[in-house]
Amino acid sequence: MKESVIKKNNMLDIKGVKVIPLGGLEQIGMNITAIEYEDSIIVIDCGLSFPEDEMLGIDLVIPDVTYLKDNIDKVKGFVITHGHEDHIGSLPYILKDINVPVYGTKLTIAIIENKLKEHNLLKNTKRKVIKYGQSINLGCFRIEFIRTNHSIADAAALAIFTPAGILFHTGDFKIDFTPVFGDPIDLQRIGEIGKKGVLALMCDSTNVERPGYTMSERTVGKTFDSIFTDYAKQRIIVATFASNVDRVQQIINSAEKYGRKVVIEGRSMVNIITTASETGYIRMPENILIDIEMMKNYTDDQLVLITTGSQGETMAALSRIAASIHKKVSIKPGDVVILSSTPIPGNEKAVSKVINELSMKGAKVIYQDTHVSGHACQEEIKLIYSLTKPKYAIPVHGEYRHLIRHAELANVMGVPKENIFLLSSGDVLTLSNEKAGLTGKVPAQGILVDGLGVGDVGNIVLRDRQHLSENGLIIVVVSLEKYSNQIMAGPDIVSRGFVYVRESENLIEEARDVVEKALDKCLSKNNADWGKMKTEIKDSLSDYIWKKTKRNPMILPIIMEV
Amino acid sequence: MKESVIKKNNMLDIKGVKVIPLGGLEQIGMNITAIEYEDSIIVIDCGLSFPEDEMLGIDLVIPDVTYLKDNIDKVKGFVITHGHEDHIGSLPYILKDINVPVYGTKLTIAIIENKLKEHNLLKNTKRKVIKYGQSINLGCFRIEFIRTNHSIADAAALAIFTPAGILFHTGDFKIDFTPVFGDPIDLQRIGEIGKKGVLALMCDSTNVERPGYTMSERTVGKTFDSIFTDYAKQRIIVATFASNVDRVQQIINSAEKYGRKVVIEGRSMVNIITTASETGYIRMPENILIDIEMMKNYTDDQLVLITTGSQGETMAALSRIAASIHKKVSIKPGDVVILSSTPIPGNEKAVSKVINELSMKGAKVIYQDTHVSGHACQEEIKLIYSLTKPKYAIPVHGEYRHLIRHAELANVMGVPKENIFLLSSGDVLTLSNEKAGLTGKVPAQGILVDGLGVGDVGNIVLRDRQHLSENGLIIVVVSLEKYSNQIMAGPDIVSRGFVYVRESENLIEEARDVVEKALDKCLSKNNADWGKMKTEIKDSLSDYIWKKTKRNPMILPIIMEV
Repeated sequence: MKESVIKKNNMLDIKGVKVIPLGGLEQIGMNITAIEYEDSIIVIDCGLSFPEDEMLGIDLVIPDVTYLKDNIDKVKGFVITHGHEDHIGSLPYILKDINVPVYGTKLTIAIIENKLKEHNLLKNTKRKVIKYGQSINLGCFRIEFIRTNHSIADAAALAIFTPAGILFHTGDFKIDFTPVFGDPIDLQRIGEIGKKGVLALMCDSTNVERPGYTMSERTVGKTFDSIFTDYAKQRIIVATFASNVDRVQQIINSAEKYGRKVVIEGRSMVNIITTASETGYIRMPENILIDIEMMKNYTDDQLVLITTGSQGETMAALSRIAASIHKKVSIKPGDVVILSSTPIPGNEKAVSKVINELSMKGAKVIYQDTHVSGHACQEEIKLIYSLTKPKYAIPVHGEYRHLIRHAELANVMGVPKENIFLLSSGDVLTLSNEKAGLTGKVPAQGILVDGLGVGDVGNIVLRDRQHLSENGLIIVVVSLEKYSNQIMAGPDIVSRGFVYVRESENLIEEARDVVEKALDKCLSKNNADWGKMKTEIKDSLSDYIWKKTKRNPMILPIIMEV
Repeated sequence: MKESVIKKNNMLDIKGVKVIPLGGLEQIGMNITAIEYEDSIIVIDCGLSFPEDEMLGIDLVIPDVTYLKDNIDKVKGFVITHGHEDHIGSLPYILKDINVPVYGTKLTIAIIENKLKEHNLLKNTKRKVIKYGQSINLGCFRIEFIRTNHSIADAAALAIFTPAGILFHTGDFKIDFTPVFGDPIDLQRIGEIGKKGVLALMCDSTNVERPGYTMSERTVGKTFDSIFTDYAKQRIIVATFASNVDRVQQIINSAEKYGRKVVIEGRSMVNIITTASETGYIRMPENILIDIEMMKNYTDDQLVLITTGSQGETMAALSRIAASIHKKVSIKPGDVVILSSTPIPGNEKAVSKVINELSMKGAKVIYQDTHVSGHACQEEIKLIYSLTKPKYAIPVHGEYRHLIRHAELANVMGVPKENIFLLSSGDVLTLSNEKAGLTGKVPAQGILVDGLGVGDVGNIVLRDRQHLSENGLIIVVVSLEKYSNQIMAGPDIVSRGFVYVRESENLIEEARDVVEKALDKCLSKNNADWGKMKTEIKDSLSDYIWKKTKRNPMILPIIMEV
């Protein structure tokens, strides 16, 4: 597949519509794709990604939008498929530079507005709520929002009518014939658009490795009911994704059915549920919600606590409850805790830790059959191919292992291999009815955010953090007299994260001898080049430490001139 | 369950056999349990555990055997259930202090001998090979080795005949009626021992969350055959656990059947397969093995490469192949790579990375239906309870979530709740036919090994590494003149892992001003207490940095007197 892409690298003469992912393969989860035709650009989604393990200390990663900045006059707006972080999370950072209107469905825009409010950007940002079936014209594009199902309400697929043909982008989706809120995905309209002729399909790849169909969200409600029956006397705590409004709705439904009051805990949970309530995306029976402070007035069998932290996130409410550092909730034997989510790869150990901690405190932890995915499995993806019959396939939303599987599936569904494109971030793919291929490359490295700093932490800083994290550091300070280069003070040795110094006094003492010898060697040669002196100290000390400990701490010689 | 343990804390008058886990719950995977009766101690297994994520830079964790050292005259020997790292890995460290004989089955002892050779301990360690069905007398104990099945050949359960009754320890096991090598688990003998009356059962909990039965190892061989049929023309690479000798045997069987030569790659794979070959645990058809250098003389359809790295371990052969840094093997489009293992929790992302990298190079990666577990599922565990009908149950080998599930299962199988003990590392559980309970606590914190250092990295060092890894550090150096306390040089500011300095010159410049002000403040007050001066520098700089960056680097003020 990759090969066909590379082969077409020289085809720079295609006139057509450009598809330019600015995140994606290299920044998994960061969904942002520019669509360009002559002097019009629209941007689908504006997500962030969370740091990889080796990005020590990094809070989040946002896209590089240099290309959009360079073409700011062309950029007509952001069209957003749904309100998940990996699709909207970078908006507050990017809107500062690319201040264009944002379009989305009602709940999506409401969630974005929350976010903009936090960043003080609400006043300066144009937003527009789009209904399913409605179209907007942006430059030479017409974009239609089409109803889909996902693990958040109000998710949309986008049909982008371009002068070169129709692009169909599924967003994140599943096919739920019995959704908890609203209607099933609009398969009729997708078929109708397919009949008109789809130039390219950009389809969700998340679950492409899974055969069959994803179960309906409604099946989880049945599990909740049976748990509420089985544990009628116990206090029930349910942790799930804050944004899974339908899941929360079903917990509330069970609570209502079994006569329990509901407490909502965790900042993002409170935010989203409030927004969903206000916009009518969640049905909240009267008087069912109580404040967390009021829990003491109810017995265990009258309470359900809905909370964040189902992924074992350290600072989320459930983790704090499990670790006994939550101010208002503590686990007691008999409590029933439902983890209503499956660990996202990488979170397994954190989730296990929470399960262990809760179990040790006597809670019954239930985590089987309490979740369904929000993404389409193989048969659902095939259905979308059947309905759209695209000329070109551009698998999106997944790691390479998913994209390549998706490519196989697209091929099975009738898309010729040479018409399937697995794009890397920054690739410029140009499509026309006649031909298609890579026609360029734009900057699209993720930008690291650490605290208030955006982009000031790069590879060197990360490499240093890695080095420090594994081996700690040794600082050598020495004062030399100007001109004479006599040692006036030191060498002093300070270490952090290396060894427990009190138990390694000899080692540090001997290290000082090694440094002194290195200094003597330089000074006796009248070699007062500080660079060379530092290298000599570093090399000899590092040799000595490795020999003695088989460790490789960072060594920082500092020479002061007095 | 936990409660019953705590309640019995005061029962210090039990005369019986003591069960003392020195690893386990707090050091998952570190299997080592002392069994004590009057003046006899034997130790079951001597494993190591791998560092948790927060143990930055730590290579491995070994048990604290202070209790054994303090009772060295009682200790009669190590009885080892099987040759996996989490059961034998600490032997080279522990034998230095506790030099007693080691008993195990033939393959287990052969693997241990490899290890001792590497550590130059072979000469000084007594080893003895025990056959299935054979018993040894150690102090007042008689220990019988009983055949089981596991993901390594020659695994044994132990029946420990003590003056207080029989302890039955399953080791790691599964029930395989059609094992690849040797016979199925000796259920008859287990039944016979059960009939005599088992005081306590210590049974593997790893898969206790999974219903049903673990499939036979032989089923994987069928998958291999069908992959070898489907990809008859391609080069096939199979990654699996080095110690899974039966798995390797099945790959070799398929290779033989389909006329392919076999290359073994990866140090631990070569070691174990050589040992298994020499001891007769693997059947190696004549001339099937070729050296890796000879691969070039064969066509793709004539080759199978068996390698380590199925868990995405950075330094293992498969990861190096995937990252194109392996010296002798490089992936080409069309290669078929089989990952014959399931990611151990925590390794998911690393495995995914390898799959992605291999796919990008054009390999077909197969990872479904290519593995079965080596541990018993619920029905198998129930069978062991049925055969042994223990008075007490001590679930072993698992996180707390597993132990608590196991306790539920033991209870369903007829063990009263108050007779089930979930032990923490260091707990002393004393068992007699009349009563049982916790009677003490011994030291059992894991000891961290970093390079050559054993135990010289503690919490302070780890906390520093954590701090450094997230935020980097800022060093402030200043030279003061003796007596006068005049600033002779500096303050100089050096940072590592904080920000990319060239782009943050202003920040560093302003930081220097902040430090100068702090110094002036101290010196003007004639406050030349260096401790106070350092605190003042630290506090003011840390405030400034937080305000500017919302980051919290480690700040290290160093004052030199010249």
